[in-house]
Amino acid sequence: MIELVLGGVRSGKSRYAESVVKQLPAPWIYLATGQAWDAEMQERIVRHQADRGEGWRTVEEPLELADALVAAGDAPVLVDCLTLWLTNLLMAERDISVAKKRLLDALSDRKALTVLVGNEVGLGIVPENALARRFRDEAGWLHQAIAAQARKVVLSVAGVPCVIKDTSGAAKD
Amino acid sequence: MIELVLGGVRSGKSRYAESVVKQLPAPWIYLATGQAWDAEMQERIVRHQADRGEGWRTVEEPLELADALVAAGDAPVLVDCLTLWLTNLLMAERDISVAKKRLLDALSDRKALTVLVGNEVGLGIVPENALARRFRDEAGWLHQAIAAQARKVVLSVAGVPCVIKDTSGAAKD
Amino acid sequence: MIELVLGGVRSGKSRYAESVVKQLPAPWIYLATGQAWDAEMQERIVRHQADRGEGWRTVEEPLELADALVAAGDAPVLVDCLTLWLTNLLMAERDISVAKKRLLDALSDRKALTVLVGNEVGLGIVPENALARRFRDEAGWLHQAIAAQARKVVLSVAGVPCVIKDTSGAAKD
Repeated sequence: MIELVLGGVRSGKSRYAESVVKQLPAPWIYLATGQAWDAEMQERIVRHQADRGEGWRTVEEPLELADALVAAGDAPVLVDCLTLWLTNLLMAERDISVAKKRLLDALSDRKALTVLVGNEVGLGIVPENALARRFRDEAGWLHQAIAAQARKVVLSVAGVPCVIKDTSGAAKD
Repeated sequence: MIELVLGGVRSGKSRYAESVVKQLPAPWIYLATGQAWDAEMQERIVRHQADRGEGWRTVEEPLELADALVAAGDAPVLVDCLTLWLTNLLMAERDISVAKKRLLDALSDRKALTVLVGNEVGLGIVPENALARRFRDEAGWLHQAIAAQARKVVLSVAGVPCVIKDTSGAAKD
Repeated sequence: MIELVLGGVRSGKSRYAESVVKQLPAPWIYLATGQAWDAEMQERIVRHQADRGEGWRTVEEPLELADALVAAGDAPVLVDCLTLWLTNLLMAERDISVAKKRLLDALSDRKALTVLVGNEVGLGIVPENALARRFRDEAGWLHQAIAAQARKVVLSVAGVPCVIKDTSGAAKD
């Protein structure tokens, strides 16, 4: 059972994703892909942890997302976020196709709920930086692949969750 | 009664917001937050004024938005736009939290319609410029706070107003 | 009969647009506005052609889009994409208003289906580059003008086609 939550920066996507996971009984696993590259990032991580409150177990995994999902077993998992994971893969010069295939396999093997958060970054002007262009491409393809497999896809806009795909009424998967 | 109209650049959001205000009897107050920093900006302001036509009273207020809303009394107000107001606050090194709190209080105190226009700027690649990153964050948080209080939230795309929140049927506020 | 398909980069907009055209009997005309400025672009063009498969006739037209639509006669046409066409017009220093007027006239004169793909580029931070700012403005105005004339407007997000305007039930045009 996969739910993909997309949105721009500060669109309320993480808070909404947390509320979805918290509809199930605790404990919940918060699978953090972020790495504290600098003080700004460190501050965001600490603030987010404080905001989440009780009932969460935090697992930090910048690269091996598929392994972490297998290790999570039957617990509901919140992956926050795909965008940082993709950044980490690109920085580490990993093969994106291979990592993506492994993620999609791990997701379809899970029985428990997995909610994945992703930053929508493809709606601005083409960046001059070639790596930024590649990143936009990879992020778009990754979101498409997960959305195709997801039961539900939500676009968060100004804190309003807009459901853009929902097959949960049709057939539970 | 609050309506928030978001959208990208040239997405038809101001024109839609004007049409909402004009469903009520004139006079309407056009609360302009823009300041003519350069010729490009000056040209936009003049073009927008000409496009609006009769029935509007223009009030220019780059910073004290809450005071201007109180001064507007019972008239329907169009705030155009939140994005420029936030830019002005950042440029003037004002305390954003304080200004935001005062705006939200003024909005909830109003009986008359307030339609607020905001630029959605958070759906592109992370900007390299730190001030631009801070601006995106503040804009996102501001839009979320107003959307939470709003009766209606609209995302304008290519001139098509997409209603993403509407509680007007549930209870008039 | 006009359908406008908008979306960010790698949002699945071209694939969706192709599926719409392919609901009608072949042959279909693929009206490519892209020019291979560099190796990256050339690679994208070749990949897209291979992905499309049988039944398509490719017409390359970087500038005279209106003429190409007239020449297409009664065949269903996919215009991919408006964004590259606008880029080409700006590069060639053409009069955008004149070109846009001719496109809109050609579109309204067609009896056959025309599906047009456009990149939504106006939802990021204001670019520092003046040409990029002008491009965003022109793209937004162009999308609005076509959306106003279109029977159907779709925003593609992560491969999910979100219908934001559909007047096909009301009256066939």
